[in-house]
Amino acid sequence: MPSDEPTLISDDVLSVAPALRAYMQDNVIDGLWRRPQLSPRDRSIVTLAVLITRNQTLDIPFYLRLALDSGLKPVEISEIVTHLAFYAGLGNAASTIAIVKDVFGERGIAPNDLPPVDPKLLPLDAAAEATRAANVEENAGTISPGLVQFTADVLFLKLWLRPDLAPRDRSLVTVSSLMAAGHIAQITFHLNKAMDNGLTKEQAGEVIAQVAFYAGWPDAFSAAPVVGEVFKSRGQQSA
Amino acid sequence: MPSDEPTLISDDVLSVAPALRAYMQDNVIDGLWRRPQLSPRDRSIVTLAVLITRNQTLDIPFYLRLALDSGLKPVEISEIVTHLAFYAGLGNAASTIAIVKDVFGERGIAPNDLPPVDPKLLPLDAAAEATRAANVEENAGTISPGLVQFTADVLFLKLWLRPDLAPRDRSLVTVSSLMAAGHIAQITFHLNKAMDNGLTKEQAGEVIAQVAFYAGWPDAFSAAPVVGEVFKSRGQQSA
Amino acid sequence: MPSDEPTLISDDVLSVAPALRAYMQDNVIDGLWRRPQLSPRDRSIVTLAVLITRNQTLDIPFYLRLALDSGLKPVEISEIVTHLAFYAGLGNAASTIAIVKDVFGERGIAPNDLPPVDPKLLPLDAAAEATRAANVEENAGTISPGLVQFTADVLFLKLWLRPDLAPRDRSLVTVSSLMAAGHIAQITFHLNKAMDNGLTKEQAGEVIAQVAFYAGWPDAFSAAPVVGEVFKSRGQQSA
Repeated sequence: MPSDEPTLISDDVLSVAPALRAYMQDNVIDGLWRRPQLSPRDRSIVTLAVLITRNQTLDIPFYLRLALDSGLKPVEISEIVTHLAFYAGLGNAASTIAIVKDVFGERGIAPNDLPPVDPKLLPLDAAAEATRAANVEENAGTISPGLVQFTADVLFLKLWLRPDLAPRDRSLVTVSSLMAAGHIAQITFHLNKAMDNGLTKEQAGEVIAQVAFYAGWPDAFSAAPVVGEVFKSRGQQSA
Repeated sequence: MPSDEPTLISDDVLSVAPALRAYMQDNVIDGLWRRPQLSPRDRSIVTLAVLITRNQTLDIPFYLRLALDSGLKPVEISEIVTHLAFYAGLGNAASTIAIVKDVFGERGIAPNDLPPVDPKLLPLDAAAEATRAANVEENAGTISPGLVQFTADVLFLKLWLRPDLAPRDRSLVTVSSLMAAGHIAQITFHLNKAMDNGLTKEQAGEVIAQVAFYAGWPDAFSAAPVVGEVFKSRGQQSA
Repeated sequence: MPSDEPTLISDDVLSVAPALRAYMQDNVIDGLWRRPQLSPRDRSIVTLAVLITRNQTLDIPFYLRLALDSGLKPVEISEIVTHLAFYAGLGNAASTIAIVKDVFGERGIAPNDLPPVDPKLLPLDAAAEATRAANVEENAGTISPGLVQFTADVLFLKLWLRPDLAPRDRSLVTVSSLMAAGHIAQITFHLNKAMDNGLTKEQAGEVIAQVAFYAGWPDAFSAAPVVGEVFKSRGQQSA
């Protein structure tokens, strides 16, 4: 029978660290997850991105069920796994396949509920893509021509244009993954893209709090100043 | 029957890399662990913090037994797991629960040997906390109000004041975890706190050597200059 | 029966993310791996280094078989595991022991096909070692004398001189591991050493593309500018 609770709420915790179960219940389940700054659906996206990025498979079944119950669609989960294969590494996606398969099985999600291999892609923002490509060419063109080519052909002309995960949500996955892996050098570009795609300042700030719990405080504190610089550069007022 | 040796000492290594078993025996077990700069109890704290932070569960049973045999108390191990839930991420703590439960079971450690959920907290150093809170408010207050609030309420007004792990040991866990995850941006604050709490310069330097073996050389070399800057800023003479 | 395909090619993927199987086949197996800038043997070295460094054991059996089929010798695989015990951490090596043992067993690789514990070491480049040791002594000598001593005694006077993995390949393992763990601070020294040992500029650039797929795009993009600086400092022309 599938567990319907995360490990830190299970009875096992009482044999190791009873205080941790209380923290998990009070601060995480009844605290963090109920804050209005991010919807449960958004928190599910962030949490799945963090766990897949960190290869922490133990509680992914619980959070997948929570995600489905919070309105995340199977096509969206499928796209999140596909997206993170590139942003977190092929091995991280591989580790989640059997787990997602089982949860999809429980819920009766069938192959024709999944995104097609070759969907009609979203329209390309040609100007933004030209700027991005020129930047990457300048920075990496003579260093790793292969990286430059795959980045365009596989990522920005294909993966990012797949229609079954909204660009704002795709960016949310990316930013969460970057924070969870300590990849602060890439946060600036992708948070700007996320905010261009509709992520609000309040939501972006709350992503950091969600990441703090699921990836640990240090990643959150490393991300915060970079996020602050993005806010400043976009000319938004402090809340 | 529980294994009483780490994997790299097991017979399996002879089928893959016999030299590695020799290195493990000569340089780690008979070398590193016998150096006087850190006690076996301290090395156990560092090693458990590194393995939990890196989600490397395979040899945690061996090092838990070694920790208990080296004088680390069950209440202290319980607090280490609880502490790392926040500093290394909830998922890392979750991965260790079943393992610690089994080792506690072997040793007859019962729930009433564990720290209470709500102990009488250590006294707060109000001045230091005011400085810390003001710093965080200035750096992250308008970026992630949630992060700021949880950092105070859950971490510095609660977790850090739990009495069953001495502040010096709690800092040792934190610094080891930061080094093992490459979180060098947070080492300065926490190493200063550790040294305020009694960690000596010689011990801090030797933590780096312990981290080198258990997290890999690159993390040790990334940490060393940051540790050096802390030593310098505290006005201590080179040994 | 051992699987002869990576997880992302398996039928399971069709129940989760059919597009991901298409990407894996078209862009990775039929794309990346067939590019001439790195041989299949080199790509196997890079991939194994990435997976061991990231503790992603699931597909290591597949890539070990591919490595053996691509000409990597059992002695070389044994040395790679031993090397990464120090550069990625003892726990990462420990996690691979049982897996390598099984694959070696399948292939009839016996203990006397493995490198000896104490081989005749390669000759030491005394001048380069003196420079390295002086640098480390200056930077870490008063901070962590233990780290300095182990770095010389275990790594540069022993591990790096073991003869069953060519210095160029040992450097390739090291650079791949550093990129996969985001240890950009150490890339400069080790990439220079790799190129001194014969790694070409074109190969180094292609390592980044291989790392992009197996460790994720962010690690590749963090590594690229550091690699570019090394190329520039060596006075080579852009291709």
